[in-house]
Amino acid sequence: MITVYGDIKSGNCYKIALLFSQLGVEHDWKEVLVVNGETKTTEFLALNPAGQIPVVILDGGEVLTQSNAVLNYFAEGTGLMPQQALAKARVQEWQFYEQYNHEPTIAVRRFISKFLGLPADRKAQYDSLEEAGYRALQVLENRLAKHDFLVGDSYSVADISLYAYTHVADEGGFDLSRVPAVSAWLDRVRQQPGYIDMD
Amino acid sequence: MITVYGDIKSGNCYKIALLFSQLGVEHDWKEVLVVNGETKTTEFLALNPAGQIPVVILDGGEVLTQSNAVLNYFAEGTGLMPQQALAKARVQEWQFYEQYNHEPTIAVRRFISKFLGLPADRKAQYDSLEEAGYRALQVLENRLAKHDFLVGDSYSVADISLYAYTHVADEGGFDLSRVPAVSAWLDRVRQQPGYIDMD
Repeated sequence: MITVYGDIKSGNCYKIALLFSQLGVEHDWKEVLVVNGETKTTEFLALNPAGQIPVVILDGGEVLTQSNAVLNYFAEGTGLMPQQALAKARVQEWQFYEQYNHEPTIAVRRFISKFLGLPADRKAQYDSLEEAGYRALQVLENRLAKHDFLVGDSYSVADISLYAYTHVADEGGFDLSRVPAVSAWLDRVRQQPGYIDMD
Repeated sequence: MITVYGDIKSGNCYKIALLFSQLGVEHDWKEVLVVNGETKTTEFLALNPAGQIPVVILDGGEVLTQSNAVLNYFAEGTGLMPQQALAKARVQEWQFYEQYNHEPTIAVRRFISKFLGLPADRKAQYDSLEEAGYRALQVLENRLAKHDFLVGDSYSVADISLYAYTHVADEGGFDLSRVPAVSAWLDRVRQQPGYIDMD
């Protein structure tokens, strides 16, 4: 049985839960809470020395980390991963964009606000990430103003990767009404078969 | 003819140059310098709205960005990309690690030091990234103390992805003698057929 160590409120972990629901991948979910320090215990660090979630244990016991690498591993050969080489590259292009530009601004602001309660000593960092976060959302807006989904004409793992933190960007102080094409896309994702909420 | 817009001194761009040399991919290289603001011109932003290099124009005119997505696109089907599904996932695991943990610490310190000349108003940021940078190097050290390469037993695009900024980490103030297995691996990469220097 596949085991996932994760916190469903973390977008990176929720990506796995959403994909597994949509593909019908049976698994055990073991809740690990970042805010309680549970990713920094000796036991957890033995599993993933980077101290990050999600961590997925495959049937053979292999440990796989990095949410997008996990998504692509399980999506390959299904309708959620395009078959054509350039389209596969586009999926990764969005995912690397997500990890480099989108997550470090939008998810970090959400973490500071929602999970840490916006403490005074993080306020300057929170404020400094606003502009870059809106720029990250605008890149999505530009694509989605002209296309229904991020890669090609259909829903794929790329949409899962970017939906995860975008749909809760308001919890990081971002006003999603400023990006109407993104908002309409969020609704399209919610209508996909097997969709589950973060909660 | 494939066109690459890049700055060979940028690790993300150098990855492409190294792979193309090793695979014998013919291309035009158009130099674009970040420090001169050349990634923020109207002309460049029309090419890549994210204002980042490298940008690769494929034979059909398609624009592909994100260094690791480009590497994987060109490496697929060659000896530099493993064939087995789990090994492919491991390649991406290292690459997402690189973009999330390694580049934002090691490459950013190098940029502040080497390209900006460590100005006083960036010194606090520079100092704050030291510990996380050494942690990122230690993750490589742990793997390379027991294996010659990052994925499986042979050289792959994962090594290219991590070599790019690691081999110039000293320019960001990191002492590579603290990670001897990493240093030995850097030498192994330099011995690969088709290897070219960053300069």
